[in-house]
Amino acid sequence: MAIKREFVSASDARPPFFVGVDVGGTNTKIGLVDDRGCPLSYVQIKTRPGQGPEDGAERIGQAVRDAVEQAELDAADVHRVGLAAPGTMDIPAGKFLEPHNLPGWFHFPIRDRVSAHSGKPVTFANDAGAAAYGEYWCGSGKDFQSLVLLTLGTGVGAGIILDGRSIDGAHGHGAECGHLIIDYNDNARRCGCGHTGHLEAYASATAVVERTREAMAAGRASSLREPLDAGRRLTPRLVAQQATAGDALSREIVMDTARFLGVGIVSILHTVDPQAVVIGGAMTFGGTQNELGQAFLQRVREEVRQRAFPVVAENVIIDFATLGSDAGFIGAAGLARADVAGP
Amino acid sequence: MAIKREFVSASDARPPFFVGVDVGGTNTKIGLVDDRGCPLSYVQIKTRPGQGPEDGAERIGQAVRDAVEQAELDAADVHRVGLAAPGTMDIPAGKFLEPHNLPGWFHFPIRDRVSAHSGKPVTFANDAGAAAYGEYWCGSGKDFQSLVLLTLGTGVGAGIILDGRSIDGAHGHGAECGHLIIDYNDNARRCGCGHTGHLEAYASATAVVERTREAMAAGRASSLREPLDAGRRLTPRLVAQQATAGDALSREIVMDTARFLGVGIVSILHTVDPQAVVIGGAMTFGGTQNELGQAFLQRVREEVRQRAFPVVAENVIIDFATLGSDAGFIGAAGLARADVAGP
Repeated sequence: MAIKREFVSASDARPPFFVGVDVGGTNTKIGLVDDRGCPLSYVQIKTRPGQGPEDGAERIGQAVRDAVEQAELDAADVHRVGLAAPGTMDIPAGKFLEPHNLPGWFHFPIRDRVSAHSGKPVTFANDAGAAAYGEYWCGSGKDFQSLVLLTLGTGVGAGIILDGRSIDGAHGHGAECGHLIIDYNDNARRCGCGHTGHLEAYASATAVVERTREAMAAGRASSLREPLDAGRRLTPRLVAQQATAGDALSREIVMDTARFLGVGIVSILHTVDPQAVVIGGAMTFGGTQNELGQAFLQRVREEVRQRAFPVVAENVIIDFATLGSDAGFIGAAGLARADVAGP
Repeated sequence: MAIKREFVSASDARPPFFVGVDVGGTNTKIGLVDDRGCPLSYVQIKTRPGQGPEDGAERIGQAVRDAVEQAELDAADVHRVGLAAPGTMDIPAGKFLEPHNLPGWFHFPIRDRVSAHSGKPVTFANDAGAAAYGEYWCGSGKDFQSLVLLTLGTGVGAGIILDGRSIDGAHGHGAECGHLIIDYNDNARRCGCGHTGHLEAYASATAVVERTREAMAAGRASSLREPLDAGRRLTPRLVAQQATAGDALSREIVMDTARFLGVGIVSILHTVDPQAVVIGGAMTFGGTQNELGQAFLQRVREEVRQRAFPVVAENVIIDFATLGSDAGFIGAAGLARADVAGP
């Protein structure tokens, strides 16, 4: 993976320092940031869930020390570590519950074990909440007091920050906005979680592929047939390419995704009414760099304008997130910082 | 209106004291409560929006003094006044925006004028948020750190309390949960606000009447025909009576209301994940006092169990609110108290 981030040097950085860790099912990202969220160093390791959680905690602890060394700082310069992880968790207890993509790590006291191996106090957080906090602290939301991050990927993830606090929920299921019900009817689409009518069943990468496949099975003409017949896999990226090349069906699929996302955003706005909603994740159709991404964003905004209360529709900021896949470790570090300093 | 509330005497009460004011389109309720939310006195006045906001603020100020006198306290015993009001408002500025049921009060600086007329500092709040805070502080939510109140009446109102704070939103539209979209389709029901597919278009008293009327117009048999032919008005109360008397259509209408409400609750749970959701307002089908009310509540719980994440579905408390129409002034007083003491 090409790392495009810019690092500040230790001499230009503003102390105190924090290390953020973003544990994923495949890779774990570790970054050391300063008091403004600027990264000084970055380390990526394989998570290797199969080797067990104690091994994982130990290698994370080592990576934290590596990040400190790479930044040319002393261990004592780092105040705290922020640890973001996926799946179900008991945040106050610092333990996993049953994270699907970390099999074998169930019920492991990850916070205290990473603390033992890194020699630092650890703040434990949900990865989506951490990413939202990262955007809030020093990304697309840095001018706002409240923000919702929606990440479009295999699923639809979310994080909600209100007055500098991540809404984790009483049962660790706050900001599961992919599972907002946008269609209560019996014939609504089925979500990966097994229920029907959830936003994720309409607006995730999985849903884009399924909706495209259904439309083609129903006989819709599309320039997608040629690459698919040539053996290419049906992905949101391929749909985006064909949409950009002028394929009507592909463009319709992308714009319908925007429409569904807009519906979900309206329910979010009418519940927590944030200053901004930002959209990130792997499936942003090129983002602001791209005509398709811009048209997608415009269609989301339009749907919100058509369906939300005027005061909200006119004032809420809807935009792309800016930190990309760095949001998680930066936000984890930010949550650690907030545990020291308050939000 | 028969007042059933029990008052504590000044000698049994626990200082400090707060006065809560709940401004409605028709009546304004004023109550003095102690540090536990127990009322010592209660005054109700007509709001008379037509006489203008300065007159209203003056009479509210007088009613606050009357409530103090009725409680046999001195003005100095009251630390602060909480003022809850309906409609759009700018809470930080203490001003109304354009509250529909207070015509002529648009953009009036109600907080500071009530403060001037009562001689007390005033905390300004949204009425639904205040009612939710009342339930959280000393009603159905008093054992919880977070709660959502849904009120079923002409519309569907809501208040969200997380960690003792009311979620008012960046544009004063937090907790507008009546306007969650539960059906994105073009043929979805139309809401009073003009948009389609909103929860309120399915689960409000207005929607109960409309859905009943539609079913009867479609030829459904119902014992409702007799009272309606005799000139009675179609109301949720009449539907509830006929449901209790065994009318299948009426019961179906009530249970469908529960089902729609359950769908909306799932979206709320997957956004803010509170410990409890409590249901209040004028339309609770008899509440816990009544077989129909209990069946309604059971149906809501069942819908949530079927549609929410297991951890949430199994652990969230769903129940009726307990403070009734007192929740607003008690919660307003509680918010005033929180402004002094912190949540």
